[in-house]
Amino acid sequence: MNYPKGIKNINTNNVIKYDNRGMDLEDDLNLTNQYYIDNGKAFIYKKPTPIQVTKVDYKNGMIIKEAYFKEPSTTDYNGLYKGMYIDFEAKETISKTSFPLSNIHKHQTEHIKHIVDNGGICFLVVRFSKLNKDYILMGKDYLDFLKNNDRKSIPIEYFEDKGYEIEISYSPRLDYLKIIDYIIGGMNGK
Amino acid sequence: MNYPKGIKNINTNNVIKYDNRGMDLEDDLNLTNQYYIDNGKAFIYKKPTPIQVTKVDYKNGMIIKEAYFKEPSTTDYNGLYKGMYIDFEAKETISKTSFPLSNIHKHQTEHIKHIVDNGGICFLVVRFSKLNKDYILMGKDYLDFLKNNDRKSIPIEYFEDKGYEIEISYSPRLDYLKIIDYIIGGMNGK
Repeated sequence: MNYPKGIKNINTNNVIKYDNRGMDLEDDLNLTNQYYIDNGKAFIYKKPTPIQVTKVDYKNGMIIKEAYFKEPSTTDYNGLYKGMYIDFEAKETISKTSFPLSNIHKHQTEHIKHIVDNGGICFLVVRFSKLNKDYILMGKDYLDFLKNNDRKSIPIEYFEDKGYEIEISYSPRLDYLKIIDYIIGGMNGK
Repeated sequence: MNYPKGIKNINTNNVIKYDNRGMDLEDDLNLTNQYYIDNGKAFIYKKPTPIQVTKVDYKNGMIIKEAYFKEPSTTDYNGLYKGMYIDFEAKETISKTSFPLSNIHKHQTEHIKHIVDNGGICFLVVRFSKLNKDYILMGKDYLDFLKNNDRKSIPIEYFEDKGYEIEISYSPRLDYLKIIDYIIGGMNGK
């Protein structure tokens, strides 16, 4: 959180890897969401980072003098698509074999459960940056994994089996709604 | 924003007024939303306040040393109800005659427009605190007002005509979804 951008893009060994894409997952998603807005396709946006304010200087125009980053209790993105509620969390991992569950906080998992229970479309977007692979894992499949496993990470095989790979392209960068269309269109496709 | 709670509840003249309710609109809505969650009716929550962080002390555990409250670019609350996207902004006014439009920032109006355009359910909850009245004004009616008027405030007559009054009750405090049900159920009811 809040590390200077670009640092992780230093490529020291000329291996073709995610870093060569030049943008991180958040940039790709922001561009994609802007594309959706510009084309009237959907309205999906990033929520503010939750911050706990502890000291405010009221005298000089409400400057915050002390505050802390709070553990997020919701997901990063939400919005609507064809009137439907869309909600997702986006995470990158450098692991080539699994997605560490420490990336998703307990309150976020509860948030995901609330959305699934209330009929919303909720998912994770997980980038395996060393593998150049981005997956959608639907909230229900994520919750099923937690319920049925006592592991600290989700193996990539689970993403290959239950998830949906998002192809990267020029514009939109990560057309994740194409996959949502497919999933909504017919659950029998897979 | 961020003024100590309760200060405005000091009642100096024994007149029965909103202050006697003991809670402000945000408290009432938070209680209502918690009621909806507890009863599995809906999942609607308050978004974090947007803050622009300008200085962070990384050495001592990521303490924010300087930051500013940003002008909100979205509404306060969103979530989902029966799979539908719900989004609203809540405001109180002490005026007895009109709701000052300065309460809603330009970016928030754009946000409301995006939601309406994308088929979401979007509205304002406006409390006229001196009148003990809470109204829902649907996003479309709010946007229509802006389009057809060059005024700095929306007169209360517009709320009486186009809006829907929310009754306050014990639990849930402000059952605004009852009104949303009514509006969705049949637009011909009014």
